[in-house]
Amino acid sequence: MSFGDITTCSSFSFEVVANDGAARAGVMQTRNGEIQTPIFMPVGTLGTVKGITPDDLVDKVGAQIILGNTYHLYLRPGLEVVGLHGGLHQMMHWKRPILTDSGGYQVFSLKDLRKIREDGVEFQDHISGARHFFTPEKVIAIQETLGSDIMMVFDECPPADASENYMQESMARTTRWEKRCLMARKRDDCALFGILQGGTREHLRRQHADELAGLPFEGLAIGGLSVGEDIQAMYDTVELTTPLMPAAKPKYLMGVGKPDDLIECIARGVDMFDCVIPTRNARNGQCFTSEGTLVIRNAAYAQDLRPLDPCCSCYTCSNFTRAYLRHLYKAQEILSAQLCTIHNLHYFLDLVGQARAAIIAGRFEAFRRNYYAGQHSASGQTAT
Amino acid sequence: MSFGDITTCSSFSFEVVANDGAARAGVMQTRNGEIQTPIFMPVGTLGTVKGITPDDLVDKVGAQIILGNTYHLYLRPGLEVVGLHGGLHQMMHWKRPILTDSGGYQVFSLKDLRKIREDGVEFQDHISGARHFFTPEKVIAIQETLGSDIMMVFDECPPADASENYMQESMARTTRWEKRCLMARKRDDCALFGILQGGTREHLRRQHADELAGLPFEGLAIGGLSVGEDIQAMYDTVELTTPLMPAAKPKYLMGVGKPDDLIECIARGVDMFDCVIPTRNARNGQCFTSEGTLVIRNAAYAQDLRPLDPCCSCYTCSNFTRAYLRHLYKAQEILSAQLCTIHNLHYFLDLVGQARAAIIAGRFEAFRRNYYAGQHSASGQTAT
Repeated sequence: MSFGDITTCSSFSFEVVANDGAARAGVMQTRNGEIQTPIFMPVGTLGTVKGITPDDLVDKVGAQIILGNTYHLYLRPGLEVVGLHGGLHQMMHWKRPILTDSGGYQVFSLKDLRKIREDGVEFQDHISGARHFFTPEKVIAIQETLGSDIMMVFDECPPADASENYMQESMARTTRWEKRCLMARKRDDCALFGILQGGTREHLRRQHADELAGLPFEGLAIGGLSVGEDIQAMYDTVELTTPLMPAAKPKYLMGVGKPDDLIECIARGVDMFDCVIPTRNARNGQCFTSEGTLVIRNAAYAQDLRPLDPCCSCYTCSNFTRAYLRHLYKAQEILSAQLCTIHNLHYFLDLVGQARAAIIAGRFEAFRRNYYAGQHSASGQTAT
Repeated sequence: MSFGDITTCSSFSFEVVANDGAARAGVMQTRNGEIQTPIFMPVGTLGTVKGITPDDLVDKVGAQIILGNTYHLYLRPGLEVVGLHGGLHQMMHWKRPILTDSGGYQVFSLKDLRKIREDGVEFQDHISGARHFFTPEKVIAIQETLGSDIMMVFDECPPADASENYMQESMARTTRWEKRCLMARKRDDCALFGILQGGTREHLRRQHADELAGLPFEGLAIGGLSVGEDIQAMYDTVELTTPLMPAAKPKYLMGVGKPDDLIECIARGVDMFDCVIPTRNARNGQCFTSEGTLVIRNAAYAQDLRPLDPCCSCYTCSNFTRAYLRHLYKAQEILSAQLCTIHNLHYFLDLVGQARAAIIAGRFEAFRRNYYAGQHSASGQTAT
């Protein structure tokens, strides 16, 4: 198989502008604009980042790129509806870049409802139970219809406890699927990222990195983490994997994570992150702050007139007290989810922005120490 | 009893700037700014207008004044918490005027949980069942702690089917309570509105108007409507009542209503309205438009790329399709409530703004005809 004459993405580029240890700061160009890395991508599963309007995502949070879920959008509202709008950007009124996953992770999560074959995966969806068949070619076509700025290859994400034999079999199939994804591209304005599997085993990561070496992806992701392994195993795997990835391409750690994880994995060379944690936890009243995690329902905050985070300049922290936010949460007001979502996303985006500035200034280690000092200064709060 | 030397509100004024038939346009001044009438007040029961941030209320909706519920805020978060913030404005970060009801309506709704005495009402709240006692003096003190720009007197709102005898007894007690409210005022920067009861009977409305005549309220409300009477009885009662109210003071119709009701009651001389309909219905996916009511979950909108209302310039209509809004509603996304709330409130505020402009231009009747022509032009929509 030759990739010499396949479609690649003419609107995509990536440049590393600074290194500080393994940490790096970069600039990515996509057809819908620039992204400064390291970056966190809020998750917009069903064509909306839950609890926030697109203009607040820009104005109050500073989101530069969001993630859309291929599997969920394929089911609801369906490709026909998204296609009628001209794509996901137009449908959800989001003018900045969108990365879409391939749906692989969701399909493989449907344990008893899916069957893996060489050509693809047959599955029943979690809504109507209807039968579907995803192939590498189909998920690329779907993502091109969505109009993704960055598409992801169709891969299998095996569980953390998969056997050596299963991992070998799965990785080999994933490699074949990734090559088919490359061949299936039709649009030259949608970038395509490969995914590096191999679980937490060093020899498997090396082996898969070798298999993917030289394939003309615009970027590479670390898959197969944040699936149940312990946190140190994740950090160790990231540390051994990032040097195996091409230095000139963005390195994306899928589905990660908490603020500590961002700091630790930026330190280990990761450029991109996505996770539902800031939005999901916001809806449950769990807020991330420079002093640790704050659970807003706690009685301790009933008369606390301080903002969620005294060091935060977001809309929520500039205008509302913990006492008011606790009241909203207990009264189950929608505004509770709205304000905590704004704060948490702002916190994540601000954190990666600060990390980037520190990398460029060559003081990332001091920034990292300072971050942990703040997390443990918590006055009555629990560190993450 | 003399009211010659009681506290009145030095920061409040009202001026009628135009009359067109019985309809009027005015300007109200409060300590937190100006209100142009006729006006609709979004309801912020628990210190938040459900589903919208305070800055969107200003920037995307154009709300000039909102309503807070004394009963609900007294229970949650409680006066101590509101007081610690310095008042309701500060707690909820709302810089424009707030009108608070007296809690009378809610307390009297607790049919089996309340007991009326001459000095006040004893009741058990709907949350914890704890016992409370509201007197005219207490509800004024509560509203002054909330820091309301416009307070309402403590009154009884009898059901639509109350007997003549009961109405007489209730009205007389309400009059005594209203006078006690006037005497109980301590702040000179919180206006106080009286409430005119009398159900749908003309002689009772006349009698109560006589009883309240000359009392130094800054404005007067029509209470006891929208409590189960038919719609024509409500319009007729408003029509006979507004001429009984002082022309120089604002006339507020409590708890009303749908867009048709606003048009009909503006035509009959009402200056102020409040209702949960635009916000509550938005959360249920019912949207008000210039072409009638639109129920966004309907399958007819699954591939409809038009905005909710082709004549609307709101954030929702400028940026999102019916197909997308239907998807959000069906997927139970918070953004559905957010976007429909923005649209419905914008629609209500825009409607009263257009009515005001029409009154000033002396073409209110043409505006009213035009409004109904639009409502019946609905393409596949149900008129309200």
